[in-house]
Amino acid sequence: MKIARIQKIHGGSVLYALLEDDRYMVIKDPFAEKIEITGEEVAFDQAHLLAPVEPRQIIAIGVNYREHAAECGRPLPDAPVVFVKTLNTLIGSGEDIVLPAMAPDEVDFEAELAIVVGKTAKNITPEQADDYILGYTCAMDISARDCQLRLDMQWARGKCFDTFCPAGPCIATGLDGDNLGISLKLNGETMQDSNTSDMIFGCRYLVSYLSRCMTLMPGSMILTGTPPGVGVGREPKVFLRPGDKLEMQIEGIGRLEHRVTAEKI
Amino acid sequence: MKIARIQKIHGGSVLYALLEDDRYMVIKDPFAEKIEITGEEVAFDQAHLLAPVEPRQIIAIGVNYREHAAECGRPLPDAPVVFVKTLNTLIGSGEDIVLPAMAPDEVDFEAELAIVVGKTAKNITPEQADDYILGYTCAMDISARDCQLRLDMQWARGKCFDTFCPAGPCIATGLDGDNLGISLKLNGETMQDSNTSDMIFGCRYLVSYLSRCMTLMPGSMILTGTPPGVGVGREPKVFLRPGDKLEMQIEGIGRLEHRVTAEKI
Repeated sequence: MKIARIQKIHGGSVLYALLEDDRYMVIKDPFAEKIEITGEEVAFDQAHLLAPVEPRQIIAIGVNYREHAAECGRPLPDAPVVFVKTLNTLIGSGEDIVLPAMAPDEVDFEAELAIVVGKTAKNITPEQADDYILGYTCAMDISARDCQLRLDMQWARGKCFDTFCPAGPCIATGLDGDNLGISLKLNGETMQDSNTSDMIFGCRYLVSYLSRCMTLMPGSMILTGTPPGVGVGREPKVFLRPGDKLEMQIEGIGRLEHRVTAEKI
Repeated sequence: MKIARIQKIHGGSVLYALLEDDRYMVIKDPFAEKIEITGEEVAFDQAHLLAPVEPRQIIAIGVNYREHAAECGRPLPDAPVVFVKTLNTLIGSGEDIVLPAMAPDEVDFEAELAIVVGKTAKNITPEQADDYILGYTCAMDISARDCQLRLDMQWARGKCFDTFCPAGPCIATGLDGDNLGISLKLNGETMQDSNTSDMIFGCRYLVSYLSRCMTLMPGSMILTGTPPGVGVGREPKVFLRPGDKLEMQIEGIGRLEHRVTAEKI
């Protein structure tokens, strides 16, 4: 099942819908125990695709692929590296990624599998985690590397600029999050190409670990870290420039596509 | 004007109200251009006081008092040290601060002035900031120092356990946030006693700085840093234990009071 969040072009109401081959089928609450179809159908060209969820928390995990740790020159972590993205970062598929005027020069891409939490989770075990995961979506953890790595004491500012968390196109259910192909292209050239099976901490462990720290809420997103190939790990380094085109894809979920623009003040 | 968020004991609806000497006077949207009184009044003993706002962002500033930087052994920062607290941390006045089972041993207190944003703010100047500040509230940035300072690469987990952001009792309007007495007592003993005039980066600058990074939203809270006297800066160090009582106070706003308990799993 693929759940999308859409806004109708005429009328403007925000709806959740199942993504079918040729149309959206509107549903009621995607977090309900049983998903109910309303009967309303919307043609693809009659709706904008939004970020697939309105989370109250976006939690992210750093350094969670072995080879990405190596390209960052970091040791393998012995516990998940937790950080937080604010809600202003979230955009839906097709919206522009904006290079902020405050830090436009070293903005980098990171393709990530994101877990979407299905119900309130506190102190759950890895074995229970599947019951609390609604599904998975594609996300990018866009990062201003100058702020993150050189200028600031914490990663927060570098990770929290507006538009720095593209997500979508849908929440795919029934997948094994720990074995999915994940890739990213910049201007048509493959920059990241890996599988979530290379993650150091798997999805069930992450949901359990985080639930011991904080009450996870329905709709919360957990970005699970990025595979190798990011711009800052290359020689010479590659950073995003206005006009660039980013595409990412995860097996069984779908594709995100974004243009890069410069902030106009 | 003091704006509180309350929940009626009988009936359960959540309301915003003006805090008068002897009762609550219910208002409509506190973020409206002009605050409208509905005419409904609620006796103090007929309502629970909640956290004064339901934010979509809780942003916090570290190392923002000169003497606190010294007690942490850190140089004075040349830009605000930004980090983020997740929404699960927020509790209202009187609710228990819970020592998490995952990290119960080195939980510390930090009394802070919190700015409550009144309307959407992006790329505003310090001179414009007052127009975007609804008011101020008391907050504590409770912190598991082992996670924050020793175990984790980032501060996030140590700052984001449930109940780690007590806030209230109200949003006070019409204050100068950069000149308010702020103090905290642990079990009746004064541990922090300072004035927000000692902040390195003042409130208007912080709102402006953050608005250049992220779109601030109505209700967003900005914790402005803590004065000296925190537990980890003492010799011997002082950490919270079950049964402890924390009280904090800010001139012109009011008082927060919380008991400390241990998490039961």
